Amino acid sequence: MTAVWDIPLTPLAFLRRSAEVFPDKTAIVYSDRRLSYREFAAEATRVAHALRGSGIQPGDRVAYMLPNIPEMLVAHFAVPLAGAVLVAINTRLSTQEVRYILDHSGAKMLVVDAALHPVVAPVAAGLKTVDEIITVVDPANPGDGSGSGVTYDDLLARGGNEPLPWAVEDETGCISINYTSGTTGKPKGVQYSHRGAYLNSFGEVVHSGHTFDSVYLWTLPMFHCNGWCTPWAVTNIGGTHVCLREVRGDVIWRLIDEHRVTHLNGAPTVVTMIMRAPEARRLDYVLTVTTAGAPPSPTTIMQMEKLGFRVVHVYGLTETYGPYSVNQYQRAWDGLEPAERARQQARQGVGMVCADALRVVDPEMNDVPADGATMGEVIMRGNNVMLGYFDDPAATDKAFAGGWFHSGDLGVLHPDGYVELRDRAKDVVVSGGENISTIEVEQAIVSHPAVVEAAVIGVPDEEWGERPKAFVVLAEGQEATESELIEHVKGLIARYKAPKAVELVGELPKTSTGKVQKFELREKEWAAEAGRIRG
Amino acid sequence: MTAVWDIPLTPLAFLRRSAEVFPDKTAIVYSDRRLSYREFAAEATRVAHALRGSGIQPGDRVAYMLPNIPEMLVAHFAVPLAGAVLVAINTRLSTQEVRYILDHSGAKMLVVDAALHPVVAPVAAGLKTVDEIITVVDPANPGDGSGSGVTYDDLLARGGNEPLPWAVEDETGCISINYTSGTTGKPKGVQYSHRGAYLNSFGEVVHSGHTFDSVYLWTLPMFHCNGWCTPWAVTNIGGTHVCLREVRGDVIWRLIDEHRVTHLNGAPTVVTMIMRAPEARRLDYVLTVTTAGAPPSPTTIMQMEKLGFRVVHVYGLTETYGPYSVNQYQRAWDGLEPAERARQQARQGVGMVCADALRVVDPEMNDVPADGATMGEVIMRGNNVMLGYFDDPAATDKAFAGGWFHSGDLGVLHPDGYVELRDRAKDVVVSGGENISTIEVEQAIVSHPAVVEAAVIGVPDEEWGERPKAFVVLAEGQEATESELIEHVKGLIARYKAPKAVELVGELPKTSTGKVQKFELREKEWAAEAGRIRG
Repeated sequence: MTAVWDIPLTPLAFLRRSAEVFPDKTAIVYSDRRLSYREFAAEATRVAHALRGSGIQPGDRVAYMLPNIPEMLVAHFAVPLAGAVLVAINTRLSTQEVRYILDHSGAKMLVVDAALHPVVAPVAAGLKTVDEIITVVDPANPGDGSGSGVTYDDLLARGGNEPLPWAVEDETGCISINYTSGTTGKPKGVQYSHRGAYLNSFGEVVHSGHTFDSVYLWTLPMFHCNGWCTPWAVTNIGGTHVCLREVRGDVIWRLIDEHRVTHLNGAPTVVTMIMRAPEARRLDYVLTVTTAGAPPSPTTIMQMEKLGFRVVHVYGLTETYGPYSVNQYQRAWDGLEPAERARQQARQGVGMVCADALRVVDPEMNDVPADGATMGEVIMRGNNVMLGYFDDPAATDKAFAGGWFHSGDLGVLHPDGYVELRDRAKDVVVSGGENISTIEVEQAIVSHPAVVEAAVIGVPDEEWGERPKAFVVLAEGQEATESELIEHVKGLIARYKAPKAVELVGELPKTSTGKVQKFELREKEWAAEAGRIRG
Repeated sequence: MTAVWDIPLTPLAFLRRSAEVFPDKTAIVYSDRRLSYREFAAEATRVAHALRGSGIQPGDRVAYMLPNIPEMLVAHFAVPLAGAVLVAINTRLSTQEVRYILDHSGAKMLVVDAALHPVVAPVAAGLKTVDEIITVVDPANPGDGSGSGVTYDDLLARGGNEPLPWAVEDETGCISINYTSGTTGKPKGVQYSHRGAYLNSFGEVVHSGHTFDSVYLWTLPMFHCNGWCTPWAVTNIGGTHVCLREVRGDVIWRLIDEHRVTHLNGAPTVVTMIMRAPEARRLDYVLTVTTAGAPPSPTTIMQMEKLGFRVVHVYGLTETYGPYSVNQYQRAWDGLEPAERARQQARQGVGMVCADALRVVDPEMNDVPADGATMGEVIMRGNNVMLGYFDDPAATDKAFAGGWFHSGDLGVLHPDGYVELRDRAKDVVVSGGENISTIEVEQAIVSHPAVVEAAVIGVPDEEWGERPKAFVVLAEGQEATESELIEHVKGLIARYKAPKAVELVGELPKTSTGKVQKFELREKEWAAEAGRIRG
């Protein structure tokens, strides 16, 4: 029996409470649909029964590949309510990438949006563990009508309404696995725990300043770090989730107006999109935008504030449930010149209230001096660090070397204790908030018969923060155009991972031991940028 | 080694973070004193070293008997930082009551305010476990100068500045013991855990709506349920603690003006005091008052709101770290008539976000219907329920019967899921937020030679919420006046526990088995009160 005072932490408790306390309040808005908290909990219960009725056992993985529609929010409660583990798949991945994730996670079931079904269809018959594919047909984009033959309604019909306990026996059990591209090219499955998701939700509430009147707009993909735990956090606070299928400036402004949105999260891309939309105008209240992926520029911060937005700058990785640190605003900055203040706010900051410790260390794991100049690797520890990579003890051991999580990001520690990133140890490009492995892109390019070798780095991009650029050495006597190489890559991996530019070079800069010096390539590309970050 | 992702929860982490993130921000204000967060952490570290240097071992109890001055706030971090357990003693207890708590808790050390030292002095030599008494001399009231001979400065001189880890090995370890009067007359030691204190702090932050700009006025005694975990919660959010020695209307208003106080907690007594002070006036911002002990009356709520206060009504017991439930405000109430809205807000409500489940049950522990009429006992479970009573397994087993904590309070469950108290199963009077055992008062009265029997109940009191009233049967041929009996009681137990009134009666109403029917006495006394609660 559970002790009176020792109830395992789980975000399931958030939906239980909100359904009890706010049964008739609007929990989810999507187009013309409205789900109250009572209906939200009822649908999660029904889906959980349906999963069990479909053969899903405790600990089984259930994959979802959906845009930010209500079924995806429901999944964040229904799957763990069934005792299973949610695997939310990036909707922009290629067929082979999706196949890899489904096979590696050992998912028993896949729930996929009808419009995305064609991505899965070519490999559907050959999946190693998926017994069944369920198609969600969203009237807003029903796809080509092919589907898997089993719809979400069919799934619901297997469910029941009998209440299930919004509880778990082991709070350190896995609630979800989020696949992320690392340096190796093969995505790794980052495991979140019920405890970590619960605690991180409180961190989100505190730092984004959610209240019981929050109206949250879903501009951040839920497949990305489980939307930084926000499906759980906003449900904890009994706020209203506003779903949207397409992240477009006009749609965002329409929803802000219609629902008086108080909060949204997103990569800098989203922030830029909001600012540049023709509909952009000054709000008569404060809307909080929590952003990560690249620091907002001083110009952006000033522009946003003029329109009535409050910008909260956070930093983290998939391995840290999304945000780990926050640029904690200091009242002392109120008096600074706007440009200087924005410079302070562009730093990645300090650990969130639910974090343990953020350090910047040299290769021997000694803390670097807090001088704002000495570079070191950013490492973290705490309840908001993943349990480890799924079925990959070697990668987990490496990431947890010395009892700390190694971010692979390089930064400095300022005298005020704020961390600022300066470079990235891992070969990753962060584009629109998503990781792109440079090695994966390089391998795709090198597979072209005319190419001898290639080096890919991230270069500044106004819309996406960064995009990959390739430096390519062709074989003697061979020819290939930039567009030909880009199309070649798009045929192999997700289109958003393809380079925005290809530069043909005679040779790549290398160390004496033959290692490509990407730093030199980055220096050149980023030279024009002030405040170079994440190069 | 602790896992990378499994860091035990402890409120110690809150002071670590705030000292790192807000080193120069004012953490504590008291009279002319100001402590920055850096200084707050440094003093907690120094005191922790001093405790260890004074022979305090991990798990030892250290008692504090201080008003709400900075040393008391420091104790909430210094004592657990030393690995010890804080026993905060009610400053209004009598000599014998303090002796009982010191002996029962097995405290090794007592830190006492110089003005309160005379309470302890008569028994100081005979204490079973206390090795040393430290006197805190507050210039605002240095007492009669007698003291224990060892001052707080002497204690500090034994300390050091070497950093100590703001961490614990076992989050379910005990952080503090709070003595509460139950029905037996003997106070029981309610044990709080690091985990419970940590989680409850987040609950306080969410429900009282604390922000990083919070300025919190210490009107609630820190010896009462560790001030509902607020020493930890406000430190978590990096707010400013405003201490005060005496809770007086003029002092409160002066501090509100001087520091632009945003939050305060307190019993209805405090709310009434604020409202009735000659200085009362309309604020130009919202100040949140979180109150418990008795529901605020409709009139009070309306008056407070007119002055710019927001009232958050909570309910709990010492056994639940202070507040367990909250009258969660519903937007649907905005449209109600003020009196009807206030009636909704007077209910004890629903579990806080950090709670597990609140139920109203019949004697067989079946849930009563949610009809707003059927009475049952209020029971709770969750991480904000105590570990148990210190050194009292029998009382713990009784309180935890059936795997739930039994509050002893009787209430109904409304159709909207809100609990409302209707009566109290335990014989306790809640006066100014403190429990008074009626049995203890009865025993004191009956010890008077002229008295045959006595029954004590709580009666409404404008200032204190409730105060005890005694119904007394004198022995044949004996005489005793009301004031004589009250003085007799005051000579035996804490003065605030003495009845406000004594009514001499020919006999007490009894059941056929001879049990006094206090319900009948209460009916009569409370008949005049609308919305009778906690009779």
